[in-house]
Amino acid sequence: MNIAIIGLGVIGGSFAMGLQAAGYKNVFGVDINLETIELAEKEGFIRKGVVDAKDILSDMDVILLSLYPSQIAPFVTQHKALFKTGVVLTDVTGVKTEIIKQVTTVLPETADFIFAHPMRGSEKKGIIGADHTRFVGANALITPVPINKEENLQLIEQLYKEIGFEQVTRVSPELHDEQIAYVSQLMHALSVGVVNSSQASDETLTFAGNSFQELTRIADINGELWSELFLNNRAALLNSIELFEVELDALKKSLIENDENTLKKIFSKATTQRKHWY
Amino acid sequence: MNIAIIGLGVIGGSFAMGLQAAGYKNVFGVDINLETIELAEKEGFIRKGVVDAKDILSDMDVILLSLYPSQIAPFVTQHKALFKTGVVLTDVTGVKTEIIKQVTTVLPETADFIFAHPMRGSEKKGIIGADHTRFVGANALITPVPINKEENLQLIEQLYKEIGFEQVTRVSPELHDEQIAYVSQLMHALSVGVVNSSQASDETLTFAGNSFQELTRIADINGELWSELFLNNRAALLNSIELFEVELDALKKSLIENDENTLKKIFSKATTQRKHWY
Repeated sequence: MNIAIIGLGVIGGSFAMGLQAAGYKNVFGVDINLETIELAEKEGFIRKGVVDAKDILSDMDVILLSLYPSQIAPFVTQHKALFKTGVVLTDVTGVKTEIIKQVTTVLPETADFIFAHPMRGSEKKGIIGADHTRFVGANALITPVPINKEENLQLIEQLYKEIGFEQVTRVSPELHDEQIAYVSQLMHALSVGVVNSSQASDETLTFAGNSFQELTRIADINGELWSELFLNNRAALLNSIELFEVELDALKKSLIENDENTLKKIFSKATTQRKHWY
Repeated sequence: MNIAIIGLGVIGGSFAMGLQAAGYKNVFGVDINLETIELAEKEGFIRKGVVDAKDILSDMDVILLSLYPSQIAPFVTQHKALFKTGVVLTDVTGVKTEIIKQVTTVLPETADFIFAHPMRGSEKKGIIGADHTRFVGANALITPVPINKEENLQLIEQLYKEIGFEQVTRVSPELHDEQIAYVSQLMHALSVGVVNSSQASDETLTFAGNSFQELTRIADINGELWSELFLNNRAALLNSIELFEVELDALKKSLIENDENTLKKIFSKATTQRKHWY
C-alpha cells in the first residue's frame, strides 16, 4: 500500500514517523519545503519525498492531507485528475462540517474521503517538532459521511490504531463541531484571553504557580491555523463561549453579593463533575 | 528551635515533612484529627503531635499556621496569652490584605507575624496528600508589614529555602492580592466555569484532548477553602475577571465579524507574551 502524506509539518511528520514505525515501507511525503523533505528522507520517516504532489499522486492508495483547513478542498480540485481509482483520502482537520461541505462538492466519484481528526495537536511547528509518540494513548474522531465505504472507514481506523491512537470514535460532523467548540476551541479562547488581559505584566511570573503555567500553555498558538479553525466553526464556538459566560456570570454574582453558600455550591458542582470525568 | 505546625493538612503536612527532611528535629504538630497526628508521628514528620495547641504553644519559637483564612485571627486571639516572648508566627494563606488587617488588630506586641504565601497548592486534601517535594522549585511570596523585624523575615525566608522553594519574593500585600487575583484566582474561576457549563456532558471525554484535561484540573477544588479565598479578595478578583472579559469580548467580536486579521493579531499577541514568559 502506497501512502502519501501531504504536508510534513508537526502533525504530518508525526504520522509519517508513526506509519514507518508501524512497519509501512511505502510512505511518501509531499512538502513545499525541500529541507523538510531532505530531513524526512534522512531520518527515514518517508521512502521518498517530492515538492510537487503531481510527481507521485497517481500511484497512491491512501492520501493523508495534513494541510490547513483552507487548503483541503483546493488540493482535491487541483489534483483529482491524477487520483488512482479507489483512492482513499483523509484529513486531520479540527473542524468538520465546513470542510466536508467544501470537499464533497469537488470530490470525484472514484475517490473516497474519510474525514478524521487526530486529537493531539502541538504548540510546535514543522517537522522538527514531529514525534509520533505524541499519538500514543490519544483519541481520534472520524466523522463518516454517506458516500464513505465501510472498508475505507475501517482502513483509516486501522492506521490510527497502528500508530498508537487508543480510541477512534465515529461521530456525526455536527456533534463533532459542537463538542470541539467546547473541549478544544473554548480552551484556546480562554487561554488566549488570559494572556492578552491587560493585567498581564513582566512581574506576573513572580506570582504564578503551576495552574497559570498550565492554563496559558495553549496561548502559544499557531495563529494561521487556529484563525481558520475558529472561523470555520464560528457559530458553534460563539455558542460555546456564551454558555461558558453564563457560568462565569453566576460566579461573579456570588462574589458581588458576598454569597458564600452559592459560591460553595458552584465549587461543589465543578468538583463533582471533574472527579466524574477523570 | 521549636516549630509548631498548626493544621496538618496537605500544606501543613508537607511543611512538616519538608522541615524534618531539612534536619529540623523539633517540629511539633497540632491537628483536630487524632488519626492525622498518629500518622504524622508514625511517619516521623513531627516529633510529637497534640490536638490542643495549648499543650505545646508556650515552648514554641516559630508557629506556622496552616489554617483556613477565617481561622487565622481567631487562633491568635485565643492563644496569644500563651505565646513565648519573641515568637514568630507565619501563615500560608493565599490572600493577604484582609488577613493582615484582621491579625494586626489582635497580635500582641511581643510576637511577630510574617505573612507568607507558598505558591504550590494541591487539589488533594489532608495529610495523606502531603508531599514536601511539591515545594521543590516552587515560588513563595512574603508580604512584609511595618511591625516585622528584618531578622524574622529572613528566618521565614530561610525556612522556605531549606524545604526547597526556589524564589521567595517580598511584595506589598496590595500587589500580592491584585496579582494573585489574576494568576491564581482567575484561573480557578475559569476552570470551574468551564466544567459547570451546560455543554459539559458524559460524552465530553470522547472529544477531549490534553488541553481540556489540563485546563479543568483545578476545577476539582476545595470549596470550603476557595470560597474564603475568593470572598477575602472580592474586589481584586472581580476586577481581574472584568479585565479578562474585555479580551474575551474582543475575540468574540472578531468571530461575529468574521474578521480573520483581527483574530490573527489576537493570537499573535498571546503567542508573543506566552513565549516571553516561559
